[in-house]
Amino acid sequence: MMTVNRQVIMASRPVGEPKPSDFAVVEKPVPQPGPGQVLVKTLWLSLDPYMRGRMSAAKSYARSLEPGDVIVGGTVGEVVASQNGSFRPGDIVLGYAGWQAYGLSDGSDLRKIDVSSIPMQRYLGVLGMPGMTAYTGLLNIGQPKAGETVVVAAATGAVGAVVGQIAKIRGARAVGIAGGAEKCRFLLEELGFDAAVDHRDPDMPARLKEACPNGIDVYFENVGGAVWNAVFPLLNDFSRIPLCGLIAHYNDTEAPPGPDRLPGFMRQALTKRITLRGFIVSDFSADAPAFERDMSQWLREGRIRYREDIVEGLENAPEAFIGLLRGRNFGKLLVKVA
Amino acid sequence: MMTVNRQVIMASRPVGEPKPSDFAVVEKPVPQPGPGQVLVKTLWLSLDPYMRGRMSAAKSYARSLEPGDVIVGGTVGEVVASQNGSFRPGDIVLGYAGWQAYGLSDGSDLRKIDVSSIPMQRYLGVLGMPGMTAYTGLLNIGQPKAGETVVVAAATGAVGAVVGQIAKIRGARAVGIAGGAEKCRFLLEELGFDAAVDHRDPDMPARLKEACPNGIDVYFENVGGAVWNAVFPLLNDFSRIPLCGLIAHYNDTEAPPGPDRLPGFMRQALTKRITLRGFIVSDFSADAPAFERDMSQWLREGRIRYREDIVEGLENAPEAFIGLLRGRNFGKLLVKVA
Repeated sequence: MMTVNRQVIMASRPVGEPKPSDFAVVEKPVPQPGPGQVLVKTLWLSLDPYMRGRMSAAKSYARSLEPGDVIVGGTVGEVVASQNGSFRPGDIVLGYAGWQAYGLSDGSDLRKIDVSSIPMQRYLGVLGMPGMTAYTGLLNIGQPKAGETVVVAAATGAVGAVVGQIAKIRGARAVGIAGGAEKCRFLLEELGFDAAVDHRDPDMPARLKEACPNGIDVYFENVGGAVWNAVFPLLNDFSRIPLCGLIAHYNDTEAPPGPDRLPGFMRQALTKRITLRGFIVSDFSADAPAFERDMSQWLREGRIRYREDIVEGLENAPEAFIGLLRGRNFGKLLVKVA
Repeated sequence: MMTVNRQVIMASRPVGEPKPSDFAVVEKPVPQPGPGQVLVKTLWLSLDPYMRGRMSAAKSYARSLEPGDVIVGGTVGEVVASQNGSFRPGDIVLGYAGWQAYGLSDGSDLRKIDVSSIPMQRYLGVLGMPGMTAYTGLLNIGQPKAGETVVVAAATGAVGAVVGQIAKIRGARAVGIAGGAEKCRFLLEELGFDAAVDHRDPDMPARLKEACPNGIDVYFENVGGAVWNAVFPLLNDFSRIPLCGLIAHYNDTEAPPGPDRLPGFMRQALTKRITLRGFIVSDFSADAPAFERDMSQWLREGRIRYREDIVEGLENAPEAFIGLLRGRNFGKLLVKVA
């Protein structure tokens, strides 16, 4: 067995956009499991926008990382040593080892996964946290009805792609926003969206309006920024906004300059009777069985498709993560660690 | 029968705060009912903040008034002539004659009310639109639980007073915000609120924080402005914001100067998993029977108390309405027309 554990730590707290120097790769001895513990070798690491929030000192729904901490993250790994009766070497498990080659766990955050017919890394994407974020937020808060228009940004990403395809399954019109012609083509040709809008187009607001001739009934908000500005005037009466991310603002260091749009938003929310609700996937953990049942079936039937963007090697995680915040990934971003 | 119908019309569209010259009292012949029509003599006119919205040209959930139009409003009146089989002279009806001494109706917007044991003007307040706004918004969106903290501004007003008292009935802690020591005393001593905060106090945000040691679970938003700024940092995870009014902004002529607080609000909504939902009372019209049953019972039991602020004479409606937008009223504002 290897005796060296490679880790990516937060070397310094990022101010604004993270820089490569905010990360450091360090080597530590591989820990040995004590009583009740499990040692897991990381095979796949998921990179997700929420990690930027963990690197911030701002109060949020989870503890902030401190400089020197291993960066958090969902992982799929193989049990290599166990002093826990529930796990034995060779088990493939979903867990939260973070950005490191080996992780120790008491087993409470590990879940054995069935990889007989499903590539294991799917449990970090369409069958995992991003897929369930899309499923629970869209169905519980967005509640799209047949014939309604659902708009989602970062639409080729791990969450957005699933939002649009579930909207289609529910009979709604799916409009995706993505960066660049290639991603837009993918939305239309591979994922079956009804319309795709390139957010790099200087006339993006006009293009979005053309793509939504009946306005917007559900805006699945995961980006904020310029997309939100374009969506806002198109929202219909009684529209719903599940809010699970604001990637355009994660690097903000202060409130943007005025005018102050908050009173105008509140007035629109009142006159249009809009529902806005922030959520994270764990708020709907009771939906996990329904999600797994539905998503497995949709995957088998080919009704949900997906794309993975795979980076090789833990040492390349920082650059890939910085690229994720810039929208450079194309599909669910994963690091193949071993 | 009188032959002169006094009306208050919108003489000019207000820019910012309405001025007396934006209103005019005019005299017209009293109309005579045609087939199917009912002539109603206005006894009571309700003055409510939403009327400022109708005077604006901005798109909203209802048609804007045009200069020359009689200002809209809920009324209680007496049928004085009828060519409609459902109504006869002497009937007391709830209707929407607006700011005028006589109104003609086809009967579809009239409802006979039982005034044998209830003063008729209650149907414009605690038993009418304002009371039902409080009831439906608080229970459907706010969903206060025992032990939670509910905050409402304009708390001695027609809606706010009912919000706080229903919160108490549901076992929640009611914190009211109002302008001046007399109104605050009324909240505590007459309406049974747990705490009252004077929004004129320069340290209002600190006073509100003291009044909400466990944070805020439900903020019933009907004012916006400085109160919202003070509430915002105190909102708890999973807090709910029924939004039915923004009186502090009704006279705004443009977006306030920056910084732009909207991204910060969205981030808080995400990390705290906040639900914000705009509504108007008609969105919950299915709840009318439950409202009437519960509110009648609470009034009989003395669990809901109320205060009316009565102005005599239609010609005094404009000044009273301007005062309402400044928070000068103390209780449900009504005009005794005849």
